[in-house]
Amino acid sequence: MLYYVGLIAVVAFSVTGVIAAGKKDMDIFSIVLLGVVTALGGGTLRDIILDANPIFWIADTTYFWVSLVASIVAFFGVRVVTRLLKLFEYADALGLSLFTILAMEKSFNLGFGYTTAVVMGIITGIVGGVVRDILTGRTPLVMGREFYATPALIGAVFFAVAMCCFPTFGGSKYFAMCIIFVLRVCAIRWGLYYPRWLTYKTYQDS
Amino acid sequence: MLYYVGLIAVVAFSVTGVIAAGKKDMDIFSIVLLGVVTALGGGTLRDIILDANPIFWIADTTYFWVSLVASIVAFFGVRVVTRLLKLFEYADALGLSLFTILAMEKSFNLGFGYTTAVVMGIITGIVGGVVRDILTGRTPLVMGREFYATPALIGAVFFAVAMCCFPTFGGSKYFAMCIIFVLRVCAIRWGLYYPRWLTYKTYQDS
Amino acid sequence: MLYYVGLIAVVAFSVTGVIAAGKKDMDIFSIVLLGVVTALGGGTLRDIILDANPIFWIADTTYFWVSLVASIVAFFGVRVVTRLLKLFEYADALGLSLFTILAMEKSFNLGFGYTTAVVMGIITGIVGGVVRDILTGRTPLVMGREFYATPALIGAVFFAVAMCCFPTFGGSKYFAMCIIFVLRVCAIRWGLYYPRWLTYKTYQDS
Repeated sequence: MLYYVGLIAVVAFSVTGVIAAGKKDMDIFSIVLLGVVTALGGGTLRDIILDANPIFWIADTTYFWVSLVASIVAFFGVRVVTRLLKLFEYADALGLSLFTILAMEKSFNLGFGYTTAVVMGIITGIVGGVVRDILTGRTPLVMGREFYATPALIGAVFFAVAMCCFPTFGGSKYFAMCIIFVLRVCAIRWGLYYPRWLTYKTYQDS
Repeated sequence: MLYYVGLIAVVAFSVTGVIAAGKKDMDIFSIVLLGVVTALGGGTLRDIILDANPIFWIADTTYFWVSLVASIVAFFGVRVVTRLLKLFEYADALGLSLFTILAMEKSFNLGFGYTTAVVMGIITGIVGGVVRDILTGRTPLVMGREFYATPALIGAVFFAVAMCCFPTFGGSKYFAMCIIFVLRVCAIRWGLYYPRWLTYKTYQDS
Repeated sequence: MLYYVGLIAVVAFSVTGVIAAGKKDMDIFSIVLLGVVTALGGGTLRDIILDANPIFWIADTTYFWVSLVASIVAFFGVRVVTRLLKLFEYADALGLSLFTILAMEKSFNLGFGYTTAVVMGIITGIVGGVVRDILTGRTPLVMGREFYATPALIGAVFFAVAMCCFPTFGGSKYFAMCIIFVLRVCAIRWGLYYPRWLTYKTYQDS
């Protein structure tokens, strides 16, 4: 089950990579490359930092092929269904939520503690998108004023607490994924920001 | 023989790093650093992902020193021979072709499969240049509309097929390097692009 | 003693990350994340390249917590004490000097040679700041014309020579840190540049 959740996350992030490329004048191969890097980048950094060998997409190349096919389909799909472009932030929210919790699950399985698991979850969730945004010359989403990394933090802390209190209950990871996704979608929908005193510019205005 | 090919690739990428720096107002040490990072960055990522320890330029510091000397020579060379500036894309093409195939060779030697070898080849070939372009604030070459990563893909797939069909024939790697270099040079010379339906902007124009 | 020096370096770099974020419109979590990445990024890359497992902040999460608290304090501190903003380059100089020498110390302890130690020192010292600058869309400080990486080089070479000639004298690392910090502060104060023939633009002017 978790395996398929991972593949869904890979598909979601591949699609965001392809859509992000749309603002530039790029050929199919560069775009597919961008989709694959976005999808596999976060997990690659996670496995490098945790020294989990071999890297997940080398151990099981299914991840790579799924990412490749999803990128190619998305490349041709966006021109048929232009509405797909509006899916960008939702696909990104889905990838963020799934990758964050999956990385924590992997950290726990490898025997790391709560702090490490939460940090690795957040890093894995956001790194793919950060690399995507840097390569396409956009300001990384996570660096914006909008609620981006905070849903990942809340979900990650929830999952850590749940693992601490109810280590045998397997459903908490799906709850945590939902929390991140729903919070992020709400942030997109209603433009949720932190209150002014928790953003940086305030002290310059007042 | 392969060892010297690797050193040539290091020299080529060091020179591109130094030339790329020329658009900025930088001191000699930053420029040499940029040359070294460009030359050694791709292989470093390759060795980290494949968990090949120690990293190639730690195992044999010759790579590092060659890169350092090449960068310094290039720094002083470009002002004597201004024509060197025009060599940028050709040196980049040379580095791309050599690093791609050398990384595949190393992947095969470490026992990895065809998919992994092709992916690592392409990553190794392009990462040095991507880091160089991000550090100097340029749009990464690989993200352009021009035929950049595609020659690397074609050469890498050719080499993988050759290794599969004729595993004992040692010449195929040199063929593959030539394929990448020649295709990339053709792309620069005649401005080869993908046809419109394989680039992203099309659907917005029509 | 070295342990506390490391924590001071983490605090210094965390603060620079938070201050750097101030030019953008970011929420507290993104800013704290930036502080933590700036503080821990260089050492993470060092441990990945040297294959030192586990990564330092996983082996001892104190580093992570200190970075987190320092970032939060800095976030609220800068609006009370606006003068803190002027500390940016000095905190950066402090982090640069401490991280460079600490990374060399770690390299030597792991049995690596002089070349590797010097390279790792410089990489560790500058990587955190480079990531910070890329994420906030600034031109990396190290890529400027000002004396930035050169103090790190001079201090690193001094320390390598000292370790070679007086391997039993423990004070040389503190000397080396002071050299880097003082040179960098002088560079900031008096705007030290390389002479024109050692910067790149010269040949185009003349």
